[in-house]
Amino acid sequence: MLRGRWLRGRWLLPGASLALGAGLGSALTARRRPGPEPEPEGLLSRLPVVPAVAAAGPPALPGSGRPELTKYGLPGLAQLRSRQSYVLCYDPRSRSALWVIEQLNRDSLSGASDRAACDFQEDDSVHEYHRATNADYRGSGFDRGHLAAAANHKWSQQAMRDTFYLSNIAPQNPHLNQNAWNNLEKYSRSLTKHNKNVYVCTGPLYLPRAEADGKMYVKYQVIGKNHVAVPTHFFKVLILEKEAGDIELRSYVMPNCPVDERLPLERFLVPIESIERASGLLFVPNILKRANSLRAITA
Amino acid sequence: MLRGRWLRGRWLLPGASLALGAGLGSALTARRRPGPEPEPEGLLSRLPVVPAVAAAGPPALPGSGRPELTKYGLPGLAQLRSRQSYVLCYDPRSRSALWVIEQLNRDSLSGASDRAACDFQEDDSVHEYHRATNADYRGSGFDRGHLAAAANHKWSQQAMRDTFYLSNIAPQNPHLNQNAWNNLEKYSRSLTKHNKNVYVCTGPLYLPRAEADGKMYVKYQVIGKNHVAVPTHFFKVLILEKEAGDIELRSYVMPNCPVDERLPLERFLVPIESIERASGLLFVPNILKRANSLRAITA
Repeated sequence: MLRGRWLRGRWLLPGASLALGAGLGSALTARRRPGPEPEPEGLLSRLPVVPAVAAAGPPALPGSGRPELTKYGLPGLAQLRSRQSYVLCYDPRSRSALWVIEQLNRDSLSGASDRAACDFQEDDSVHEYHRATNADYRGSGFDRGHLAAAANHKWSQQAMRDTFYLSNIAPQNPHLNQNAWNNLEKYSRSLTKHNKNVYVCTGPLYLPRAEADGKMYVKYQVIGKNHVAVPTHFFKVLILEKEAGDIELRSYVMPNCPVDERLPLERFLVPIESIERASGLLFVPNILKRANSLRAITA
Repeated sequence: MLRGRWLRGRWLLPGASLALGAGLGSALTARRRPGPEPEPEGLLSRLPVVPAVAAAGPPALPGSGRPELTKYGLPGLAQLRSRQSYVLCYDPRSRSALWVIEQLNRDSLSGASDRAACDFQEDDSVHEYHRATNADYRGSGFDRGHLAAAANHKWSQQAMRDTFYLSNIAPQNPHLNQNAWNNLEKYSRSLTKHNKNVYVCTGPLYLPRAEADGKMYVKYQVIGKNHVAVPTHFFKVLILEKEAGDIELRSYVMPNCPVDERLPLERFLVPIESIERASGLLFVPNILKRANSLRAITA
């Protein structure tokens, strides 16, 4: 089994058992705001549809701080980008995204949008120090791999074009990008046939592995003048929303290397806890606050 | 010159020239709120003292997003902790901080607080999946190195105790921790003699280096069951506030290995741009919005 090979062999994905309803470090309760939406100033002002945002900011702050500490600003916080096709959290250190969320359904998959009319483009909403460029990828041997997939957004040319910002891109092995990972994207789209909505969250992983000295190391390549980080793995979490509001969860991890596309996708299912531990993200507490029921599918 | 050695030799710190007033990717202008402060819900509600927070959240969101995308929550955003002695941004993936800011002055350095009354403690405001424990450090060969230093906060026993949360700690080479790094901390305190305030921002770096195949790699150890990341380097940015409001900036980087403590600290001065590029953080745009003038000291 391929999953077993890279999990137990070289790479370590932490966690094994799925614990639902685990405690939550920092919780934020968003207030429901009545009436029509004003021009949004930011995503957090548009959160009334989200009854509870877990592990999100601005977080609950324990203890009592001294506001003068921040007189000269906060050097960095999460950088959210909300676009037609996705909400993305940018990681300025890796020059790519921490995670990208999309919503797929029958409507979003149909349309006349043309991929040929899209070009990969720098995200100039990111500071130039922390931005990937097309030149960084040139000659690197890596594809510009979409996190939110272009073909998920045929409903709007702009939505499709949004997926070509390099903030939604990570260096991806070409074979993986064009075969097994592409199959996972197709499979995600196929799930809209029997679900009301498919929420897709995709992101990079940087997994440690044991070396000959018995110690654990994270090691990854960086490419180009801007040192764009090459993930060791990618995750994709599929939140399947049934007509009755029940949720089924399918979470996948693939290594950033050639993967035999004849292997069934089920081989790449992992417990959501593994992704939560390795990525520093949380999915289950958020879903449990909103869903009638949650069923996590494992291999 | 030691700095030259690790910069040009094994490790690469990007950027060389200091560009002040560079453009800013995502800027947020906080509104000044009159009258007494209500019970704070979070740091962002207490930002009126900060006229402009750059590269901070919630960011300006370009494009038009669809709020239903976030129906099941945002899997992770910046995790701020505001405590008596510091404001900290936690990185759940590395199980440590991205950055910690303190304010030092003659008042904060005097007091009867006792280090012996402090114990290193888990930060239970962090989800257990993403939290370092004392057991992670045991037998690792690394010290529990303070980011915000304990001796900076003699003014309050609680403030000193806050520095012992493992969220303010990173695995640090014992020789470095007890010698050259300790000297840099002492030097930071000594600067309060001739400055109104000394703002200190400290954090980890994970710098790439070229390997034999001619490619660049980031490689770092992780320790313990929770895979606490061992930084390759540490930065410390000193924002010296003169009586007249002018700012002098001194920014240092030290490798996470034994460093000869007889070397003058000036050897470890680096252009702030190097730290900004490598860390994914921004300092200069924030300071320029607040300060009368900014003078950056380089070696």
